[in-house]
Amino acid sequence: MLFFGLRLTLVQFIGSTHETRVFYTQLLPLTTVLTISIPETVRLLNKAEALYQSDIRSLDDLVHLAKALHSLGPGFVFLRGGHLPLTRNLEVPKYDIDKEVIVDVLYDGTDVSLIKTAYINTEISQGVGYVFSSAIASQLALGEPVPLATRKACQYVETGISKGNGLINYFHSTCILPFSRGHFIEYVLNREDVKPIWEAHVHHDFVKRIGDGTLPIEKFKDYLVQDYLFLVQFARAKALSAYKSNSMEAIAAGAEEILHIQREMSLHLDYCAEFGLSRKDIEEQEEHQACTAYTRYVLDIAHSESWFGLQMAFAPCLLGYGIIARRLWDDPGTVREQGNRYWKWIQNYVADDYRAAVAAGEAILEKHAVLQSSSQIDSLVKIFVHATKMETGFWNMGNE
Amino acid sequence: MLFFGLRLTLVQFIGSTHETRVFYTQLLPLTTVLTISIPETVRLLNKAEALYQSDIRSLDDLVHLAKALHSLGPGFVFLRGGHLPLTRNLEVPKYDIDKEVIVDVLYDGTDVSLIKTAYINTEISQGVGYVFSSAIASQLALGEPVPLATRKACQYVETGISKGNGLINYFHSTCILPFSRGHFIEYVLNREDVKPIWEAHVHHDFVKRIGDGTLPIEKFKDYLVQDYLFLVQFARAKALSAYKSNSMEAIAAGAEEILHIQREMSLHLDYCAEFGLSRKDIEEQEEHQACTAYTRYVLDIAHSESWFGLQMAFAPCLLGYGIIARRLWDDPGTVREQGNRYWKWIQNYVADDYRAAVAAGEAILEKHAVLQSSSQIDSLVKIFVHATKMETGFWNMGNE
Repeated sequence: MLFFGLRLTLVQFIGSTHETRVFYTQLLPLTTVLTISIPETVRLLNKAEALYQSDIRSLDDLVHLAKALHSLGPGFVFLRGGHLPLTRNLEVPKYDIDKEVIVDVLYDGTDVSLIKTAYINTEISQGVGYVFSSAIASQLALGEPVPLATRKACQYVETGISKGNGLINYFHSTCILPFSRGHFIEYVLNREDVKPIWEAHVHHDFVKRIGDGTLPIEKFKDYLVQDYLFLVQFARAKALSAYKSNSMEAIAAGAEEILHIQREMSLHLDYCAEFGLSRKDIEEQEEHQACTAYTRYVLDIAHSESWFGLQMAFAPCLLGYGIIARRLWDDPGTVREQGNRYWKWIQNYVADDYRAAVAAGEAILEKHAVLQSSSQIDSLVKIFVHATKMETGFWNMGNE
Repeated sequence: MLFFGLRLTLVQFIGSTHETRVFYTQLLPLTTVLTISIPETVRLLNKAEALYQSDIRSLDDLVHLAKALHSLGPGFVFLRGGHLPLTRNLEVPKYDIDKEVIVDVLYDGTDVSLIKTAYINTEISQGVGYVFSSAIASQLALGEPVPLATRKACQYVETGISKGNGLINYFHSTCILPFSRGHFIEYVLNREDVKPIWEAHVHHDFVKRIGDGTLPIEKFKDYLVQDYLFLVQFARAKALSAYKSNSMEAIAAGAEEILHIQREMSLHLDYCAEFGLSRKDIEEQEEHQACTAYTRYVLDIAHSESWFGLQMAFAPCLLGYGIIARRLWDDPGTVREQGNRYWKWIQNYVADDYRAAVAAGEAILEKHAVLQSSSQIDSLVKIFVHATKMETGFWNMGNE
């Protein structure tokens, strides 16, 4: 489909009688939408000797002008009323303060459509017509019919002027994510408001003492008990995550995660037994404040935020354990094998199954991060930060 | 702060001895970041007679090159390894199929940073260096330190190439909302997938017969009862909306809405009394399927979707009643006053307080719509569409 739009600056270039004739007899009838202002209309009609009156004083005059223009041949006339701001009741105002509405007229030879937008007292005057005609052409190219394309163009220009601070803001509907696709996690961990909090978590003294084996055994046993109690609530939050999913695949993935947590807990019990802790010992313990704070924060996010917000609350645990265990594993300073009673803990979180779970979780975060808006990213990062602090609270139990 | 970046095309323009001297003695030492590829490095070092070997065969050679370049004066050398794709283990591959990683080297005279990105087999070769240096400069302008600016530039280029289909996609992190700020509702109601469903709701036969007074009284009474039962559940959903709010202002607004519904229900009871229905008559009725479907759908959205998703589920009711009542009020065909036993119903929904509630609800929708991402808009519209169908189900009760 070919659209032929005319902007009236052309008229200024019409010199010879031949050019004028081509313009009126050939260009105008080819035109899909003629986008034109009141002064341009007056000039155009004067040249065509078709103007009955040049004093445009009412909405009726405006409609009359649009009809006169249409008789020159274009498919649609889009007559911009910007030079005639009206009152709320679409009358010509006595005082400037009563200027509230701009009415543009779209006429196709049959129907008169009035498109109302807010009057904005602006210095912007040059070039607005070009923006209108480009915006209409863009909407036509997107497949909208002329009336809707024109309405959308009017809204685009109105918003562009109101958000423009003296210029037209062409990008008022555009947002830019602050990270490249596939690099969301790295972006989050390197943010100024995240980095120190994340470092405090993954480089915590508790973690170092797991690495060199100097953590007092009672502290570690307390941690194991609370971690077990934590996982019960974490599984409930995963159930809410499944509930908030909108595909069977995602619901099933949530169920798989719950079953994975259950298996992890059973290993946990075996591991605890090595430290002389029975299931009964564990389940009879009360939740520590840090455990309640962390788990109930995640459960509240599960209730009150979006599905992806909840994934951000899960993330510090998932990512953190992987990163911590990997670093301890790689660190030549780490005490290994029989030399470190906590070596098995490190092994657990560098094992293939845990690594696969982290990779899957990372892929989900990356996939959905790019579907968020840039203004949501800050709120999502706040969830991540608070959950990280709550996770660090777990290590802090060891200081008490 | 002034950043001075050098792209090595400059070297090609170095002709006279004087120009060469200026380049090496003045431009290079001024440079904040020198962005350069392997072949460019070889040319540059050859000219400076500082090249020890030109056969770059390993990652060590690459690091060595970066150090040699740094001795020429720039603050940072960013040596792009694109001409030397490596294996997963950072070795030089024997076969093309083993090319997996590109390693770029950043060197500041002290620290060597290796930046790894995925190797992408692409036709894109010309101009990538310009994109790198522009991306680094942009990140520096945003206040990032050179190492992070460089990492982000690498991610930007990697994603730009992988999403580029043979060209670099510069806009991979950009999204454009399909409506202008302040015109979200109009956009939704005019979408192709919404318009017919919306029209079926607001132009429903039930509504027409309220307008001309021909609706059988029993049908209207059934509707009144179900509408009352509906409002009880709607109030519960408003409570969840308050719970999901994250400011005291928004929580309080939710509470105000619940109290508004309570007042509306009390008027409802007075109105029902005029039709011979007592409170007991109403509260003893069972919910019709249509009432359960609509209210439980909204409550499920309240649980499972974001706060704004819930506002989209509320929207068809809020907007629809305002639009319907206004149209009936304006329509010369509507039977008025004593002539129409349903006239008071129309009056209720054009009254100032209801109009104010609609305006407030519209403002909230418009304010938050622009904070969503373009990919979320479709899901949000789906909620609106389904809630509209459930609302239409209310009118359909009158057909049974």
